[in-house]
Amino acid sequence: ISGLGMKVRMFLKQAWDMGANDPRKVIHCIKVGLALTIVSLVYFMRPLYDGVGGNAMWAIMTVVVVFEPTVGATLYKCLNRVCATCLAGFLAVGVHWIASQSGDRFEPLVVGASVFILASIATFSRFIPSVKSMFDYGAMIFILTFSIVAISGYRVDKLFDLAHQRISTIIIGTSLCILVIMLVCPIWSGQELHSLTVRNMDKLSDSLDGWFRCVTQYFTNSNGEDDQKLQGYKCVLSSKASEESMANFARWEPSHGRFNFRHPWKQYLKIGASMRSCAYCIEALNSCINSENQAAESIKKHLSTSCLKVSSSSSSAIKELAESVKKMNKSPTIDLLVEEMNSAVEELHNDLKSLSHLLNPSTTAENQISATGLVPFMEIIPVVTLASILIEISARIEALVGS
Amino acid sequence: ISGLGMKVRMFLKQAWDMGANDPRKVIHCIKVGLALTIVSLVYFMRPLYDGVGGNAMWAIMTVVVVFEPTVGATLYKCLNRVCATCLAGFLAVGVHWIASQSGDRFEPLVVGASVFILASIATFSRFIPSVKSMFDYGAMIFILTFSIVAISGYRVDKLFDLAHQRISTIIIGTSLCILVIMLVCPIWSGQELHSLTVRNMDKLSDSLDGWFRCVTQYFTNSNGEDDQKLQGYKCVLSSKASEESMANFARWEPSHGRFNFRHPWKQYLKIGASMRSCAYCIEALNSCINSENQAAESIKKHLSTSCLKVSSSSSSAIKELAESVKKMNKSPTIDLLVEEMNSAVEELHNDLKSLSHLLNPSTTAENQISATGLVPFMEIIPVVTLASILIEISARIEALVGS
Repeated sequence: ISGLGMKVRMFLKQAWDMGANDPRKVIHCIKVGLALTIVSLVYFMRPLYDGVGGNAMWAIMTVVVVFEPTVGATLYKCLNRVCATCLAGFLAVGVHWIASQSGDRFEPLVVGASVFILASIATFSRFIPSVKSMFDYGAMIFILTFSIVAISGYRVDKLFDLAHQRISTIIIGTSLCILVIMLVCPIWSGQELHSLTVRNMDKLSDSLDGWFRCVTQYFTNSNGEDDQKLQGYKCVLSSKASEESMANFARWEPSHGRFNFRHPWKQYLKIGASMRSCAYCIEALNSCINSENQAAESIKKHLSTSCLKVSSSSSSAIKELAESVKKMNKSPTIDLLVEEMNSAVEELHNDLKSLSHLLNPSTTAENQISATGLVPFMEIIPVVTLASILIEISARIEALVGS
Repeated sequence: ISGLGMKVRMFLKQAWDMGANDPRKVIHCIKVGLALTIVSLVYFMRPLYDGVGGNAMWAIMTVVVVFEPTVGATLYKCLNRVCATCLAGFLAVGVHWIASQSGDRFEPLVVGASVFILASIATFSRFIPSVKSMFDYGAMIFILTFSIVAISGYRVDKLFDLAHQRISTIIIGTSLCILVIMLVCPIWSGQELHSLTVRNMDKLSDSLDGWFRCVTQYFTNSNGEDDQKLQGYKCVLSSKASEESMANFARWEPSHGRFNFRHPWKQYLKIGASMRSCAYCIEALNSCINSENQAAESIKKHLSTSCLKVSSSSSSAIKELAESVKKMNKSPTIDLLVEEMNSAVEELHNDLKSLSHLLNPSTTAENQISATGLVPFMEIIPVVTLASILIEISARIEALVGS
């Protein structure tokens, strides 16, 4: 029993920490409770309740299903739900009319066949990528409303009233959701995506920075890890899915803050992809530094200056880039930093060239190890290349934002 | 108008191709249609319809919402839905009883407050990772049922009947879904996860193989790309999210085929992670080979044999590993292949050591370039390390499967 008690306490502590770390989650929960309480007023006020004829539970259902943490996701679900319900409602009334004309015997057959065909087609459309990203939820609601209205037609006499009530309750629910989500501490997906990108850039530059310190240790042969910052690039590796869904929801948001309605969200995905390929390189670098083969002292000394210069200049270039994306303007110093980075790379190239003078062909072991030592420096070239791609992309974004 | 026609035709062609490529998607659509048509029989048969008192639409809703392509996902949703509905139904009846004891004036207040509190708590619990992976859907259904039943209590007199009908219609819907999904061409998440892992391993080994051919070209200076196989590792990079969700759903599946109920699904995630780190290395290798710096002829010749041996032996080791995971037994030759791979790596090391004899300290340019040429060979060491981790993990799985 004490083991169970411990588990429960651990669980509660975890939940409490989560709430304390991100108060917006707590606010979201309160918003859900608020919206539900407001929508239940429909039940408590007799004129409203009679107006929708006992179908008020659809409004509650809409609120529960549609309410999402970000504005974009909620708008996406609301619009999908309203459009799909209207479309399916009209279609179902049409099918019911056709079925009722075809006589008592064929009525169930016609209804059943139409449900079968339309449900299959709508389910199939959910697999198509372009439909999935925009109307996945809508297709599900379409099937739902169509089958309920069409099949109910067999038993319910006032079918048109049913469809009408369903649509009006859904509109009550969705408009309430939109009001609550946009007025009480709104969380915009676009804003989230923007800050995620900036945060990832910062992490990347921190990782490069940490790597820079790691290289220093590598050159001075001192030990002592600074893992926290070094591991930052792992977040960059795993953030693909959340970036995609946020960019998807951000498309539905109206203009807010510094973002317009048709903000180029897809550019953020491109930046994300470039950052991930940078992170792959850092991953490979890491395994090189942590490998057991160590370079010879003389080689290390020879290369350390230029190599450190490359890593620090590329780190500061990414940091500047993050800053300029954050402020959404083209930073005047970024070109300078890139120049600096490129010249550092040039210098490294030259150092590598002059390295061979140092090599003594008779000391085989040292030479072999020097090859290992070289890996990190050569590896940095793709990083630099990617950094310049990054810079290009961000310049393009800034042009778009500026216009 | 012709532009629109083209677009529509393109869209239809894309849909058709998708259906032709994966007939299981089409079968899934037909299954959805089938389940919906069967559930609508509830409406057409009078005794059944009267039994659930006009609440038959809940059964339709359950089918639409719960039906997922794989057995695991459907079972997860069904179990969550039934448990959450029962729990919420009982709680709501209890709250209604308390509220009705507190007098007419306080009744709306008590109901409203309980809805607000429970909805907030349930929403908060959806953010906790361990709850999210197991009961995300259940928490939503809990809020839904609780609010509908508790608030309806204010207007509907026979509240117990409402809760009872809702639970029985949901049980009708879920049991029908489970029957249809398991009897008509079932698609098991566990099976899917297994074949995805095998497929990814094959792709990885193909990529290594393609890279092997690429290295051959690199050594012989011939051009000619074989991109198709080479790009296979990119699938490995991007399959994290789908692996996780499949492993999550696979936990809910009963034993099927060669998989038991408590199959170690988490091991697949570990294999996936190892494969991804392999793929990162391949990515880094790729950028090395495609870089503009080319190694000198003499160095290339010297290293080509041992390097090719390493890449081909590691590729065949992964292929053998894929084969043994597929058949779920420990292959007798795998240890031999690993030995072979390790000896190939040893050989490469020795070749690197002897390389320095070839180096002429006066030809600086050549030496510098040789360093570039070395990168791919040193890079292979992490790949080999990771391959051995892979082998260890798979050996562990096989022990688990064998027991």
